[in-house]
Amino acid sequence: MILDGKKISAVIRKNLKEEVKRLNDKITLVVVLVGNNSASKIYVRHKQRACDEVGINCEVIKLDENITEDELLNLINNVNNDESFHGLIVQLPLPKHLNANKIINSIDSQKDVDGLTVINQGKLANRQKTLIPATPKGVITLLDHYNINLEGKKALVIGRSNLVGKPLALLLLDKNATVTIAHSKTKDLEKETLNYDLIASCVGIPNFITSKMVKPGAIIVDVGISRVEGKVVGDCDFESLKDVASYITPVPGGVGPMTIASLLENVVESYKEMKGLL
Amino acid sequence: MILDGKKISAVIRKNLKEEVKRLNDKITLVVVLVGNNSASKIYVRHKQRACDEVGINCEVIKLDENITEDELLNLINNVNNDESFHGLIVQLPLPKHLNANKIINSIDSQKDVDGLTVINQGKLANRQKTLIPATPKGVITLLDHYNINLEGKKALVIGRSNLVGKPLALLLLDKNATVTIAHSKTKDLEKETLNYDLIASCVGIPNFITSKMVKPGAIIVDVGISRVEGKVVGDCDFESLKDVASYITPVPGGVGPMTIASLLENVVESYKEMKGLL
Repeated sequence: MILDGKKISAVIRKNLKEEVKRLNDKITLVVVLVGNNSASKIYVRHKQRACDEVGINCEVIKLDENITEDELLNLINNVNNDESFHGLIVQLPLPKHLNANKIINSIDSQKDVDGLTVINQGKLANRQKTLIPATPKGVITLLDHYNINLEGKKALVIGRSNLVGKPLALLLLDKNATVTIAHSKTKDLEKETLNYDLIASCVGIPNFITSKMVKPGAIIVDVGISRVEGKVVGDCDFESLKDVASYITPVPGGVGPMTIASLLENVVESYKEMKGLL
Repeated sequence: MILDGKKISAVIRKNLKEEVKRLNDKITLVVVLVGNNSASKIYVRHKQRACDEVGINCEVIKLDENITEDELLNLINNVNNDESFHGLIVQLPLPKHLNANKIINSIDSQKDVDGLTVINQGKLANRQKTLIPATPKGVITLLDHYNINLEGKKALVIGRSNLVGKPLALLLLDKNATVTIAHSKTKDLEKETLNYDLIASCVGIPNFITSKMVKPGAIIVDVGISRVEGKVVGDCDFESLKDVASYITPVPGGVGPMTIASLLENVVESYKEMKGLL
């Protein structure tokens, strides 16, 4: 069965659009884009388009790649203190002369809709209410939508980034799965994978997971995004896996649209939190 | 081979004692004890004795169990703002009328030598330098001391608390182990354990891990503490396991003394950070 992220995300966006209309206020996400990374430009355009669709105002601040750290920190500080801004994203990666850690953590945790500040990461680890990074949040929303019960299931997360792998592992743990985190140093991964009821691959290598590596009936969550000859592909060999897996996310149309929908949810959540509506 | 926490912790404490002498300043840990929990009283006494031994000043503030949340928050705020205090522990558990989360997170993260604030938990998840909870820190120090290379090893952490299980999993992940977190909802644990190169049991049930559950040559880290007929025992059946495991921590004399030593290290680290010596 296909976990249809495109369909579910469309429902979420439709509901958000109605909610934004009901709230009847200008909800604004600020996206800071430093430099000329072409992939970053595409991502920012996607965010802008998604905001437009649901009626969220998206202000993109484009900055020269030679901006100093102090200038950027000042700008973030201004956004933090401006009550008309409800979410703030600093698009990564940043140019090397900027301390990404310092800059991300200068974002007010209440406006940190990417969930990347240490405060929000710590809240997630401590099971406190917080803004959850959009990709893992989207994965859980998708699994929830299909009423997939994860209690006692063996879940394997491949990848240990702060944006995806680690928070996804924590969220699966909160669902009472027994969770394993694998990574580039994991041995015999191609056999290991056979032991799991759920595999979430967050690697970015096309055809990294094949049907031979997966036990029949496993749930496959494909978080990887690569481009092959201009086509967007995931980590998982969908064609062979779709006959082995019980559930599988396609790429495109799986985790990607759920990520965008979850980011929009975070912006509205942040707005409501700021207004005391939560 | 026995992982001799008693011996290694004695070395650490000896070195700390010399360092404290060299620093030639009054280093102070504040421990706040609310109410009359008898186990808490014992733990606090242990901390006090350990501080005495290395020359750290330990001030225990005993509070009536009916103290209000505001009174306690005020007191913590005063300790936070007093530069003569370098570490602050609020002994858990707290009486039920107090919001433990709120109280722990009111501690200045720089003085949070238990590593329990969301800021410090988030820093740990993000691999930033921080005060690491004493028990998992002690486990890693002990494994490091015996030059145990964890890269690519399959590690199982049983237990998912914020004080021990989760931070230990993150630290093992930083050592490039492939890490699994199991818990009360994990299925067939008694068979699962056979797949792992390292098992860290943080459960608190005597004889929870027996030799039948462990593959020959595994590393056994016993984090559990229980009392049976007045005797302190761990989660692991040491007598049968010591012939199966490659390395094993005894109880007592394993993780326990390493925890105390790590807490003392955290206090000195916090002092040095405050004084700009790090």
